[in-house]
Amino acid sequence: MTPTLLTQTNGRNGRAMQLPFGEKRDGPLFNQSILSVKQFSRDDLEHIFAVADEMRMMVERVGSFDLLKGKVLAVLFYEPSTRTSSSFIAAIQRLGGSIIPINEVKYSSVAKGESLPDTIRTLEAYADVIVLRHPETGAAALAAKYARKPIINAGDGIGEHPTQALLDLFTILEERGKIDGATVTMLGDLKYGRTVHSLARLLSLYNVKLNSVSPELLQMPRELIDELNAHNIPQFETTSLDDVLSETDVLYVTRVQKERFANLDEYEAVKNSYVITPEILSRAKQNMVLMHPLPRVGEISEAVDGDPRAAYFRQVEYGMYVRMALLAMVLGKA
Amino acid sequence: MTPTLLTQTNGRNGRAMQLPFGEKRDGPLFNQSILSVKQFSRDDLEHIFAVADEMRMMVERVGSFDLLKGKVLAVLFYEPSTRTSSSFIAAIQRLGGSIIPINEVKYSSVAKGESLPDTIRTLEAYADVIVLRHPETGAAALAAKYARKPIINAGDGIGEHPTQALLDLFTILEERGKIDGATVTMLGDLKYGRTVHSLARLLSLYNVKLNSVSPELLQMPRELIDELNAHNIPQFETTSLDDVLSETDVLYVTRVQKERFANLDEYEAVKNSYVITPEILSRAKQNMVLMHPLPRVGEISEAVDGDPRAAYFRQVEYGMYVRMALLAMVLGKA
Amino acid sequence: MTPTLLTQTNGRNGRAMQLPFGEKRDGPLFNQSILSVKQFSRDDLEHIFAVADEMRMMVERVGSFDLLKGKVLAVLFYEPSTRTSSSFIAAIQRLGGSIIPINEVKYSSVAKGESLPDTIRTLEAYADVIVLRHPETGAAALAAKYARKPIINAGDGIGEHPTQALLDLFTILEERGKIDGATVTMLGDLKYGRTVHSLARLLSLYNVKLNSVSPELLQMPRELIDELNAHNIPQFETTSLDDVLSETDVLYVTRVQKERFANLDEYEAVKNSYVITPEILSRAKQNMVLMHPLPRVGEISEAVDGDPRAAYFRQVEYGMYVRMALLAMVLGKA
Repeated sequence: MTPTLLTQTNGRNGRAMQLPFGEKRDGPLFNQSILSVKQFSRDDLEHIFAVADEMRMMVERVGSFDLLKGKVLAVLFYEPSTRTSSSFIAAIQRLGGSIIPINEVKYSSVAKGESLPDTIRTLEAYADVIVLRHPETGAAALAAKYARKPIINAGDGIGEHPTQALLDLFTILEERGKIDGATVTMLGDLKYGRTVHSLARLLSLYNVKLNSVSPELLQMPRELIDELNAHNIPQFETTSLDDVLSETDVLYVTRVQKERFANLDEYEAVKNSYVITPEILSRAKQNMVLMHPLPRVGEISEAVDGDPRAAYFRQVEYGMYVRMALLAMVLGKA
Repeated sequence: MTPTLLTQTNGRNGRAMQLPFGEKRDGPLFNQSILSVKQFSRDDLEHIFAVADEMRMMVERVGSFDLLKGKVLAVLFYEPSTRTSSSFIAAIQRLGGSIIPINEVKYSSVAKGESLPDTIRTLEAYADVIVLRHPETGAAALAAKYARKPIINAGDGIGEHPTQALLDLFTILEERGKIDGATVTMLGDLKYGRTVHSLARLLSLYNVKLNSVSPELLQMPRELIDELNAHNIPQFETTSLDDVLSETDVLYVTRVQKERFANLDEYEAVKNSYVITPEILSRAKQNMVLMHPLPRVGEISEAVDGDPRAAYFRQVEYGMYVRMALLAMVLGKA
Repeated sequence: MTPTLLTQTNGRNGRAMQLPFGEKRDGPLFNQSILSVKQFSRDDLEHIFAVADEMRMMVERVGSFDLLKGKVLAVLFYEPSTRTSSSFIAAIQRLGGSIIPINEVKYSSVAKGESLPDTIRTLEAYADVIVLRHPETGAAALAAKYARKPIINAGDGIGEHPTQALLDLFTILEERGKIDGATVTMLGDLKYGRTVHSLARLLSLYNVKLNSVSPELLQMPRELIDELNAHNIPQFETTSLDDVLSETDVLYVTRVQKERFANLDEYEAVKNSYVITPEILSRAKQNMVLMHPLPRVGEISEAVDGDPRAAYFRQVEYGMYVRMALLAMVLGKA
């Protein structure tokens, strides 16, 4: 492999910067930001999942390896999310890289009136890639506009959380062997659930059927249904899981939050119809995949955890592989 | 060395998992959780201390080394303890491993109603071993019940803090060369002091004499005295250090907390009798070992720090070696 | 290179400690604390900047390298400063070392009445070097008095922040090629600005002219002006940037804080005279270096960011190189 020595100026005194030997300069997603599920074609997804599957095999064999040795990931979380930040931290470390953890934004000088673009341009002086969690929709896109280095959106308010949707889809792939042909049933709060909307959008690139099961108050938004129709996705909407349980290949459960209901009686009436129990599983397909983005607070009974169909803790692990893949790809090392 | 290739299924699609070459599958404590001092035999302790002593020699020679390269330790602290978490962080890093730090549990999604078993099963998807600090007694045992990976108890409320007791005992061993034959005097709050109780239990596996010096209000619990008697440990109880100072080989000082006293006059009356000064040391054995679990708040005068018998800062360092040993052992690398 | 095996005793049982092969035992700053800009001679600065420039070249070529592999940096911040802590964290990690992050001092046992010397003596049992941020002037010097390992002062109240001053001076060197001969103009709050005072002191070791531009209320302290005069530094004081703009080689902008003014009308009157705009730059030298310690809150218009003279984000990057140099030097590896 012949080293490619590109030169570019850095700073005012015009010293040439040479790229390290073996640094790849191409490949899908190289030097790109990960901002939205809308940026991905089906080809992109297949490439990401192929890399993520390799990551899985490598971790199962050797635990960690030095693909990203020396790379530094800034973990910039303006609101706490232990689950997501831990996943990214594990991902970069299992690839031999290291982190700059910035969790306490509310106390820090970062918060003292500094603009997000300035914070980003400061951190990219230190890090090779930045993962950003921010309460405001569009924050990741704003960051990417100013950054010379890749930004990975780890959730921007009610906006997007693209790596969650990617890991959900990868879970279906790994558990079933393929995505095409699946009947996917989404259950719970389909109105406000950011993860549900993003996953549905990604699924629309595949040949699937989509069932939506929710209380009437929490149905899938009309725009999203129209968007899926435009992709010729067969859809079925109901308030009762029983209507679709027997045909379901993938059951994606989300939380129904009490706070969504103006009338608590209404909440009490529906909440138990959406709790997955061993009894419900006894009527489901033997190879159904039961998923949940976690944390769960009662939507899936603990009595179900031992069932081989319960995929939600494996889903967590698949998330690490997807994030390993994304980090390697945006850094040109996949 | 022939590689052992064990296979086991992981996930639903039945792909075989192969263990990395050279991964040891045996050894004391391999894949075990460290929950309580009660789990250790004298043989276990001698094995741990032999490994800890090797760790000490290696750190003195090379500072750090790659025994646990690629291993990831989740540091899950539901209550802050800088001292303990820093010790574990240094331990894994001096062995070439890395950390997922989770300190702000109160703000995090972890705290939003998720059960401890779910949090543990999430983190073990990312990490190879989890060190847990939790305010509730029994939390570590609960975590270990659900975990497939080793849990190390770094304190669970008024329950146990086994690595503190191990480092206390290792300090006695390293400073004296042996534990048998020592007259150990414990001073201060012997009623509520978790570290004192755990250390006393471990000492009962050795041939030692135990003196207890405390205000009457803060005497060693009756059950513990009975337990030690059952191990034929000679014991002596007094309110005055002078009664036992001259025979003491190891003086273990703890803090007498003002809040334990209903009557502040009573506190004022006793507090100064339990402060170690150069004058007291002048009447102690020339090779006595003076210990304290730290932080101290006045129980040992700073004027004593320069005395070679003052072992409390070396005790901190021994703690790192013991934690290095435990991490290596539970990960099958010792 | 013949390994030097020094021996020293460690602990009570007299075991000899051997230094690792290749560990250098000399070099400027080896095993020294970095406490104040006053400790540096011009020779020291030239040595630090030579090493920092090497660090820059290495990072530009390979991103990271293992000069400090296995070394552990304790990052002990009693008050938050994301910018400074991130810079040190990136610095040690790009050199292959690792960190013990201690950010939440206010919650931690460290804060529960333990003295700073005790905290330092605990952390040096774990770490090879400690970077300390503390709200009280003199804290770093106190820590260094007790520590056996190097302390790096990352700001002690209104005292010093020496690494900021070093990076400011290194920025001038890297951007201009040399420091001698420069006309440096400092703008904004010159009365309270810790960074301005420290930089001015370092500049007094060089052959420069110094202009001070500030509202009358916020002029450079008389003692500092006298100190600079004693070093034969030509100085000029004015309230108007226009008086000195055309001759300025380096323009160092700081924030004018509203809280400094008793009378808000006075603040409103001056604040706009100290905002750098494209119009102002159009009248400045073509190769002027525009600096700011950041964060900025309006003192420099974002419309200026694209101008090649805007050096403030490169300044951030130079800071990492200076901190890499200091870490390598105090650890005897430069």
